[in-house]
Amino acid sequence: MGKGEQTRQLIVDRALTLAQKVGLEQVTLGVLAQELELSKSGLFAHFKSKEQLQLEVVAEVVHRFTNTVIIPALKQPRGVPRVEALFGGYLKWIHGPSAHPSGCILMALSYEYDDRPGPVLDALLESQRDWLDCIARVARGAIDEKQFHKDLDVKQFAFEFDGLLMAFQRAIKLHHNPRAEPMARKALANLLLQAASPS
Amino acid sequence: MGKGEQTRQLIVDRALTLAQKVGLEQVTLGVLAQELELSKSGLFAHFKSKEQLQLEVVAEVVHRFTNTVIIPALKQPRGVPRVEALFGGYLKWIHGPSAHPSGCILMALSYEYDDRPGPVLDALLESQRDWLDCIARVARGAIDEKQFHKDLDVKQFAFEFDGLLMAFQRAIKLHHNPRAEPMARKALANLLLQAASPS
Repeated sequence: MGKGEQTRQLIVDRALTLAQKVGLEQVTLGVLAQELELSKSGLFAHFKSKEQLQLEVVAEVVHRFTNTVIIPALKQPRGVPRVEALFGGYLKWIHGPSAHPSGCILMALSYEYDDRPGPVLDALLESQRDWLDCIARVARGAIDEKQFHKDLDVKQFAFEFDGLLMAFQRAIKLHHNPRAEPMARKALANLLLQAASPS
Repeated sequence: MGKGEQTRQLIVDRALTLAQKVGLEQVTLGVLAQELELSKSGLFAHFKSKEQLQLEVVAEVVHRFTNTVIIPALKQPRGVPRVEALFGGYLKWIHGPSAHPSGCILMALSYEYDDRPGPVLDALLESQRDWLDCIARVARGAIDEKQFHKDLDVKQFAFEFDGLLMAFQRAIKLHHNPRAEPMARKALANLLLQAASPS
């Protein structure tokens, strides 16, 4: 990584940290220049616009999500173990590294941008579609392994799977509910049982 | 309703409309005074602070939610019909009156305030707890009617029920998925089936 590339990465990382606190829309090149003690023109050398920076922040989050949730799950055996790993990986991602759950920044951003059409929302929607497709593909693998019923609607499965993760995020981050994780895991067990039975 | 009360209601309504577009935190007394062509001091006569106004906006949303979703459901027979009415009412609430789905403002606000501790977040959390308690109570009614299994964990049921509604909101509002409502209703049917069986 060259020096220019390093600075660029530093800027994106700081923008992401800021976005988690105040929302991405509040992360302007001016605020960021101040935070990083860089000149505004120095920042402009790396990002031509606030929007370009926002798009790189979204790309960085998607990159981290892929590394943290998707890739480890794909290393698990195809079928139910991979479905469970995908779910468990997302629980960890939502919880975050600290004792105080940080929540899923992609969910937060999608609420921030849901009424702001444009390239940032498009990038967020694409990442959500990729995620739902990934769940559906992993569920399809469990059908191939004869662990899920052959008539299972994998898009329906992805819809319900994703809803449980949103419920977990609400329970852990907002309500600090100590039963959040057991409830999420029990809900997944119910969903797996249902997926194995004829609909 | 006296004139003072009418003006107050007008201010809260306008603040709510604005909040749906730009977020509640951006609704300042200054912006609102401009929108309503009132003096800032005129506004201050009704609300002592931005926070007081924000709290009244949250109370107004909760009031509308109760009238639109809860009360009509409670008029249905106890048991599964009431569970289904609660779910259907929330689908309608998320969809909103126009062809373009507006989404649940309470969900949006909880994402806006989840990292801003204070009275507004407290009010939002209380409304969510009330909602989860309401689902659990209605599910308890279905146990009493012997339509749900006697060992059903009603808090677990509320967790899953609520997750499906969040998944619906994402599918309809963000992805304009034409299958959003059929998928949500199929998911509820699965959940009802599961609730009727021994765990």
